[in-house]
Amino acid sequence: MGGDAGLDMTVPGVRMALERHRDLRVLLFGDEQRVRAQLRALPEGLLRRIEVRHADVAIRMDEKPSQALRKGRRVSSMWKAIEAVKNGEAHAAVSSGNTGALMAMSVFVLKTLPGIKRPAIAGLWPTTRGQSIVLDLGATIGADAEQLVDYAIMGEAMARALLHIEQPSVGLLNVGVEEIKGVEEVRRAGRILREAALPIRYHGFVEGDDIARGTVDVFVTEGFTGNIALKTAEGTARQIAKFLREELNATWLTRLGALLARRAFRHLKEKLDPRESNGGIFLGLNGIVVKSHGGSDAIGFANALTHAHEVTRHNLIRKIVDDLRVKKLMSGLKEEANANDRDAVAAAGQGERSSA
Amino acid sequence: MGGDAGLDMTVPGVRMALERHRDLRVLLFGDEQRVRAQLRALPEGLLRRIEVRHADVAIRMDEKPSQALRKGRRVSSMWKAIEAVKNGEAHAAVSSGNTGALMAMSVFVLKTLPGIKRPAIAGLWPTTRGQSIVLDLGATIGADAEQLVDYAIMGEAMARALLHIEQPSVGLLNVGVEEIKGVEEVRRAGRILREAALPIRYHGFVEGDDIARGTVDVFVTEGFTGNIALKTAEGTARQIAKFLREELNATWLTRLGALLARRAFRHLKEKLDPRESNGGIFLGLNGIVVKSHGGSDAIGFANALTHAHEVTRHNLIRKIVDDLRVKKLMSGLKEEANANDRDAVAAAGQGERSSA
Repeated sequence: MGGDAGLDMTVPGVRMALERHRDLRVLLFGDEQRVRAQLRALPEGLLRRIEVRHADVAIRMDEKPSQALRKGRRVSSMWKAIEAVKNGEAHAAVSSGNTGALMAMSVFVLKTLPGIKRPAIAGLWPTTRGQSIVLDLGATIGADAEQLVDYAIMGEAMARALLHIEQPSVGLLNVGVEEIKGVEEVRRAGRILREAALPIRYHGFVEGDDIARGTVDVFVTEGFTGNIALKTAEGTARQIAKFLREELNATWLTRLGALLARRAFRHLKEKLDPRESNGGIFLGLNGIVVKSHGGSDAIGFANALTHAHEVTRHNLIRKIVDDLRVKKLMSGLKEEANANDRDAVAAAGQGERSSA
Repeated sequence: MGGDAGLDMTVPGVRMALERHRDLRVLLFGDEQRVRAQLRALPEGLLRRIEVRHADVAIRMDEKPSQALRKGRRVSSMWKAIEAVKNGEAHAAVSSGNTGALMAMSVFVLKTLPGIKRPAIAGLWPTTRGQSIVLDLGATIGADAEQLVDYAIMGEAMARALLHIEQPSVGLLNVGVEEIKGVEEVRRAGRILREAALPIRYHGFVEGDDIARGTVDVFVTEGFTGNIALKTAEGTARQIAKFLREELNATWLTRLGALLARRAFRHLKEKLDPRESNGGIFLGLNGIVVKSHGGSDAIGFANALTHAHEVTRHNLIRKIVDDLRVKKLMSGLKEEANANDRDAVAAAGQGERSSA
């Protein structure tokens, strides 16, 4: 598992994750000397569960995916980490590096699952009910109805593997709950999910404010809208935190009140801590790749490792592959039924003509 | 100015607005007897500035736009209020009724401005820097590049009329600030805004978290995404408020702290009060129509009236019409220049051929 940015963040994060999960083993890809220097602080017991693999090249945060692919192919820590998943040496790759490069390399090395055109990025979202999954957070722009249905299938499998919900509910993000509203592709995806007899508990359309409420376990949306919704929510949370800090600092009385109630603010902060939900999971690939937020710290990185560990342990890929097969089967049956209908209609038409 | 829902909310709201704006006069459309009963509480001085117009029919909140148009044409309070704008009896119509019906009737009665295909709904958004304008909040799904440019023009004019910013900055909502990212229509709109020499301070692409920051004065986006961003932010704010209330109520110490710091929470609430920014303004019509939030109270309704009063007083429609003319002129000049280029190229081509 690699991470290009800040070894002083990744190594303590790895340490936390190793302490948390007794069955976890970590491959670290990067500049071997620098990695080993950082590892010196770790206890012997943990070091036995870490293997360091040297990589000459690190992908920079500002590099375009195409540049990164040219420069980093085979030799970069990012590439090598993903390759380890492909070779079966690792169950998942975790990186806090350049998202576009990570996605491009993941698609290139691992390839997409049968029937999946482009992967999605799925994230955990803290809600008033607990946590929900939202996808796509921006991997693909302009998903069509079929892709939205695939997101629903993959997000639902992730909710089972990561949140341990037996029958997660799935909603399609829209501008209204009525059937007549919204973008054509969303409406079409809604029809497929309602009619296709997939093994999914489809709730129907949901709106932007349903996310914070946790109305469903899995929120499905196209990547452009998903990315803007996520960042709008993050911005709103930061804005409120800023206002609250300013107001609590305004007078000696409010400062005293804040001091007495500090437990409440600590808990609030914990509940909304973005590090808790850190780790965007790439869905739709022949392997698990998790993107840790570039701005996160060791705790956030440890949580990304935990999420990778959890979805691997619960066979996320297997679940997705099985469900995609069911989808294919159902749509095959439907096409067959339609074809039979067409034959029947054609036969009836012939009958009419011959009797005319 | 009409309002179908809750006279016990509209009438006190009208009262506040009349007290606030000495030059304001109000036409009230609705069931005359019921309206007059509500008005009895008002002082004589204010009553002289109110005129009641009877309407037999009220549009229900659950009626589809097409139903509302059939049933409410000419006879409903909503229709009559919009017609008063068309006839020049009123400068603006304000309603807290059914949004879809209000939009459909507004388009039908007032018609769109020259060059505008479909109107947008623009709203005020509280930011850490003050207030910004965001449009479209869901009037039109799937705006193309030309429509996004029109939104930029109309939103910019609204920022001048309502926020009194001399040269408002305008940003296009996208998933990244790089030129290569995002939906094709957004990228194309960005090119037009950069190259078209419009009298607009175009900032470039902005992301979801820029809204709360108030990075620009006017955020332009397509209606599907705008609606989901708005509702996601509202949901996030409610979620944080809920968590905060719960945590402050947890122990006697946090309750005491909250009591001492109550001034801070009051101010925070005021800063984020959705009633302050209440009133979605329909832009792109031959007249001003303002949609007050259905769930708002008298204070919110008074603010919607204030916003209607303010944009009317500062000639919003005039500003928009002038700017759309400039846009047409500039694109005309550009086309002419292109045509000249083509002629020149054609001439050069002929020259080449003849010399060949």
